[in-house]
Amino acid sequence: MPVIDPRRFLADLEELSSIGRFKTGVSRPTFSAADQQARAWLANRLHAAGLRAVIDGIGNVIGCSPGAGPKLLLGSHIESQPEAGRLDGALGLLMGLEVARALRDDPDCAGLGVDVAAWADEEAYYGSFLGSRSFIGELTEAEMDSAVHRTDGTPLRTALREAGYSGPRATVEQGRHLGYLEAHVEQGDYLEQAGHRIGIVTGIVGSWQYRVIAYGQQNHAGTTRMAARKDAGLALAKLIVAIDQQFPKVAGARSVWTVGRVVLEPGAPSVIPGRAELSFQFRDADIAVLQRMGAAFDDLIAEANRGPCAIETIRLSQTRPALMAENLLANLEVAAELHAPARHTRMPSAAGHDAQILSRAMPAAMLFVPSIGGISHHWSEDTHCDDMVLGTQILADSVAAILRA
Amino acid sequence: MPVIDPRRFLADLEELSSIGRFKTGVSRPTFSAADQQARAWLANRLHAAGLRAVIDGIGNVIGCSPGAGPKLLLGSHIESQPEAGRLDGALGLLMGLEVARALRDDPDCAGLGVDVAAWADEEAYYGSFLGSRSFIGELTEAEMDSAVHRTDGTPLRTALREAGYSGPRATVEQGRHLGYLEAHVEQGDYLEQAGHRIGIVTGIVGSWQYRVIAYGQQNHAGTTRMAARKDAGLALAKLIVAIDQQFPKVAGARSVWTVGRVVLEPGAPSVIPGRAELSFQFRDADIAVLQRMGAAFDDLIAEANRGPCAIETIRLSQTRPALMAENLLANLEVAAELHAPARHTRMPSAAGHDAQILSRAMPAAMLFVPSIGGISHHWSEDTHCDDMVLGTQILADSVAAILRA
Repeated sequence: MPVIDPRRFLADLEELSSIGRFKTGVSRPTFSAADQQARAWLANRLHAAGLRAVIDGIGNVIGCSPGAGPKLLLGSHIESQPEAGRLDGALGLLMGLEVARALRDDPDCAGLGVDVAAWADEEAYYGSFLGSRSFIGELTEAEMDSAVHRTDGTPLRTALREAGYSGPRATVEQGRHLGYLEAHVEQGDYLEQAGHRIGIVTGIVGSWQYRVIAYGQQNHAGTTRMAARKDAGLALAKLIVAIDQQFPKVAGARSVWTVGRVVLEPGAPSVIPGRAELSFQFRDADIAVLQRMGAAFDDLIAEANRGPCAIETIRLSQTRPALMAENLLANLEVAAELHAPARHTRMPSAAGHDAQILSRAMPAAMLFVPSIGGISHHWSEDTHCDDMVLGTQILADSVAAILRA
Repeated sequence: MPVIDPRRFLADLEELSSIGRFKTGVSRPTFSAADQQARAWLANRLHAAGLRAVIDGIGNVIGCSPGAGPKLLLGSHIESQPEAGRLDGALGLLMGLEVARALRDDPDCAGLGVDVAAWADEEAYYGSFLGSRSFIGELTEAEMDSAVHRTDGTPLRTALREAGYSGPRATVEQGRHLGYLEAHVEQGDYLEQAGHRIGIVTGIVGSWQYRVIAYGQQNHAGTTRMAARKDAGLALAKLIVAIDQQFPKVAGARSVWTVGRVVLEPGAPSVIPGRAELSFQFRDADIAVLQRMGAAFDDLIAEANRGPCAIETIRLSQTRPALMAENLLANLEVAAELHAPARHTRMPSAAGHDAQILSRAMPAAMLFVPSIGGISHHWSEDTHCDDMVLGTQILADSVAAILRA
């Protein structure tokens, strides 16, 4: 099996982390100066690892193995959330880069090749999974024409032109890839809490999102008798508590559900809320569980409508769960058991990743390493070095095993 | 007993309603041009009714009976909320004005006198009950120096100077008044729902107000397991529902309690709220009931603190309930039973009124007439004409009976 070089891998991590550094993390928004510098750095590193590297017309950095025969595609993303961690995305790319070098350096691995890709804008500054969707052929020119930066409004076309990303967009080459593997930090604390060092991702959750509006009767908080009230805020509080009580009965072991936003109108201390609104979402990797939660939610809304307020529900989105490919998972599991016996587990990913997009075009799987304290999207995000090294070696073993199968 | 003149009374109402008219209501914010015009109009009407009328240094319009002997003080307020009803405040003044004329016109009532006062700024544009507090000696020069308009910031002193209200401030003349009577629209729907035409106000509620803050842990709504969450929004939703379940057990029959404001932070659909805040208040006319509700609330906060979030409570205010004087209530009740047999009831006032201030200086009582649909602080506020006329006659009867006692 190919043997990775931890010093080389960690030195790369230190170098990439210096680009756009913010405290102990980085700030590399998509197509910012720091992000462009990071893409150029990665292209150079891929080139130095023996891959033919390009930055394509959507900003994807893709390094292709020059050899013949089937390959595996390894990838993740290189931009970051503002003032966020240095590992989210970057770690998976550096692990892929190191695996490419380990294969190249091992005479026993001659003929085993990987391509390594940084998918542009996984962090959704300009849209939803633009880079990976472009690669599998799901990003239209029309969508690119209309895409703008989420806060400063810069058109995507302008940002690409100014960055010099003017070439054709790379696409799936039929028959080239046996599959896609993405390593990533967990961004939650499940592995850490369970004492595991490796997560083998069985699927990426689907997410159902709703907006709920309660229509009551705005009135004087002093003179309006309790029996005469139609308190829209109370109606939604009851719904939130009912969800908290009922969802555990229908949810899966790793389902999550969240009310992240509540607005009362007019929102004054002495006025009974006449209108209230909340945002609700739930996630699971199993479509049957999602459907069960959806039915339970519908029941709770029907129940809420028997109160004094009318309750309206707007379904915002229903993303499909993405299933990872069993043959890839099995290979990851063999390598994990070899290097971290009994300290790995199968688990769903509760966050979205490019792997959910790639899984529509080829077999895909993901490998998680633990996030210390479960922290992510914050500059204090971190993972123990030995876990990062362990994950890289397991990825290398798995790649070789899959390519030899 | 003095007999009121409904046509004269309703003609005055029509004339006063034309000052600052807005749709079927009025817009007469304190010391606005329309409000100044209304004060001048009222002073003239009081003068024409045989009273010595002045506008004092806080804008109170006070008409004093010139005769000797004890008097009753009748009053309410003349300014309105923006784009609000024509009756809130104004009705009580016009009823007082008509009672003064009815006494004057009835030879049997010779020597029975009333003073009529419009207390400035009951609607709290510049402060809290400025006019009536000034009259009972509770408004300091320092408070007047610092008072500014709640939205445009105009200093109270500037507004008074520009309106020409530069005289001394009127104060209680010891021994002059047997008591204070205020007639008002109910501003709720209790009388209407119960089929009553007159409410005899036993007390004005005290109000206890709180701000509650829940401190949780802001985190990713996808990757954070349910068991690991500290959801500040959920903590407050549970508190709201617990209040809804527990307060009926300790509240009085006419207690009210309200959560009018809820804010979640950061308030994004995919982020578990790390901090949440609400405004809570309850009101009752009985201090023992307020104390019971306060204790129940403290218990619920203690219970909430056993959850994953820390709950902080800030007590904003605790106003005292004001008890109305039994001898005045008994006289109102006799007159009500004569003119509206079995269609009157004793009740607390759930809204604040100048009577709660005057009750600190002399016996005080209030009379309510029904609000159609319970609507107030809106231009569509209304009361049936025959109820207004009925209330005026009952007030006249009561005044004569009290003055003769």
